[in-house]
Amino acid sequence: MRSSLECVPCLVRQTIESVRHTISDEARREGLLRKFLRDIAEMDFDMPPPAVAQRVHRALRRECGVEDPYREAKDRFTAMALDLLPSLEARIESSADPFDAAVRLAIAGNIIDLGVDGDLSEEEALRAMEEALDIPVAGDVKAFSEAVRPARSILYLADNAGEIVFDRPLLRMLPGGRVAFAVRGAPVINDAVMRDAQAAGIDGLVPVIDNGSDAPGTILEDCGGEFLEAFRGADLIISKGQGNYETLCDEDAPIFFLFKVKCPAVERHSGLPLGTHALLRGRGFS
Amino acid sequence: MRSSLECVPCLVRQTIESVRHTISDEARREGLLRKFLRDIAEMDFDMPPPAVAQRVHRALRRECGVEDPYREAKDRFTAMALDLLPSLEARIESSADPFDAAVRLAIAGNIIDLGVDGDLSEEEALRAMEEALDIPVAGDVKAFSEAVRPARSILYLADNAGEIVFDRPLLRMLPGGRVAFAVRGAPVINDAVMRDAQAAGIDGLVPVIDNGSDAPGTILEDCGGEFLEAFRGADLIISKGQGNYETLCDEDAPIFFLFKVKCPAVERHSGLPLGTHALLRGRGFS
Repeated sequence: MRSSLECVPCLVRQTIESVRHTISDEARREGLLRKFLRDIAEMDFDMPPPAVAQRVHRALRRECGVEDPYREAKDRFTAMALDLLPSLEARIESSADPFDAAVRLAIAGNIIDLGVDGDLSEEEALRAMEEALDIPVAGDVKAFSEAVRPARSILYLADNAGEIVFDRPLLRMLPGGRVAFAVRGAPVINDAVMRDAQAAGIDGLVPVIDNGSDAPGTILEDCGGEFLEAFRGADLIISKGQGNYETLCDEDAPIFFLFKVKCPAVERHSGLPLGTHALLRGRGFS
Repeated sequence: MRSSLECVPCLVRQTIESVRHTISDEARREGLLRKFLRDIAEMDFDMPPPAVAQRVHRALRRECGVEDPYREAKDRFTAMALDLLPSLEARIESSADPFDAAVRLAIAGNIIDLGVDGDLSEEEALRAMEEALDIPVAGDVKAFSEAVRPARSILYLADNAGEIVFDRPLLRMLPGGRVAFAVRGAPVINDAVMRDAQAAGIDGLVPVIDNGSDAPGTILEDCGGEFLEAFRGADLIISKGQGNYETLCDEDAPIFFLFKVKCPAVERHSGLPLGTHALLRGRGFS
């Protein structure tokens, strides 16, 4: 998906939030912001927004000398999600359609996105997650369920730390021994990396691999060999979040996208209203 | 008031909305946006945000060859406000404290700000204005009323087209023959100029002057002689809107600021929560 003019203020806001989050000295913040504004002024609108964000956040980590600036925030959201999970799992098990409920939960978890809302509090996320099972999904959950059953090799593309805890019920319902869970190869915003998957207890359920990239999305040219092999070999890819949608929506691969529509650019591209809990079949899915 | 880091994404958003509003060709939009991003990257944070916005909008008008790009939007909001005014005037007249009600209406009208929300619809503004008289003002309306009564020369600084229609009831309650109403000297965003004051029927109530400047605020060094004389000679200045607050809050002049708190930077500077309908006494008021 191409970037659009309206991606720019959002990238700028995200950049400033990250600069504030990462650097404490006001003069250094200003200097960095100016540098990033000049970078964004030169951005290639043919690239998806996560490609621009990748460069900004890479420079930010280099500048502040901290490898994972969102570590503490990620740990907090993981702890919140782990606290909440048992009660939600009980509700899923006792619901009329547990698979549908697990899909609802996985999509609702996508609210934990500090790229879109850097001020998101655990309280807000908690409230949203408590309502998660009541929010219907826009998309064909039955078709998704039917695609899951015969799949021999499923690749599940993670999005954010904390959010991935809420992927666990759905991961349990996928055919055993056929699923791999892919996280980012290096920290970027609050996207999940290997350590977050371990903290979320995902590695006890399914094998976890990393994609070798530090983009807040899945830019295939930037991903590592192990990941690309899994991606090309999968007969079903479950892609979580806007960043993965923005970078993979034009790929000719058997992808189901699960995400919350959180910005006007994705709203327009997907044709789904802002706020929609979306389950979209990718164009390469047969 | 100094600009802050968080002014930057807002300026960028405002710039993009104005570029979209003014230029139809997508390639020209991109080119201009890049130019303005580079300009914003060089901005002087010691200046108030309206000083940066002034330069952006001036360049935009030059680029698109349209003198008043928001003319049609301004006329729509003026028409909406004129339709609504008689019923609000009747409610003000029959209220327990008509002066307080007129102050409430004048401040609530400050919602019509296309710099802060370029997507504001007439329906949203209409709904807000219907509730206007029920929203109490944070500030000492009695002290304001007591400052008005003995004032020999009052300068009323207008903010936006449409909004100024809702200044009329308050203007009527000021001492006759002692008030001048100042609009911007040239179009910028939806700020009111002479033509808007005439369309709003202000010129039938009090003399209207223009400030000689095309900033969306009041930058004294940029204002004309007639305006500066009125400003320096006034023993009471009534300043409407955030832009005027941002540019005049550090002035040693007898100002009452009437505005709605619409952004975190003004929230922090004023100490009033976002959304507050504020009546603030300026530091130069004795």
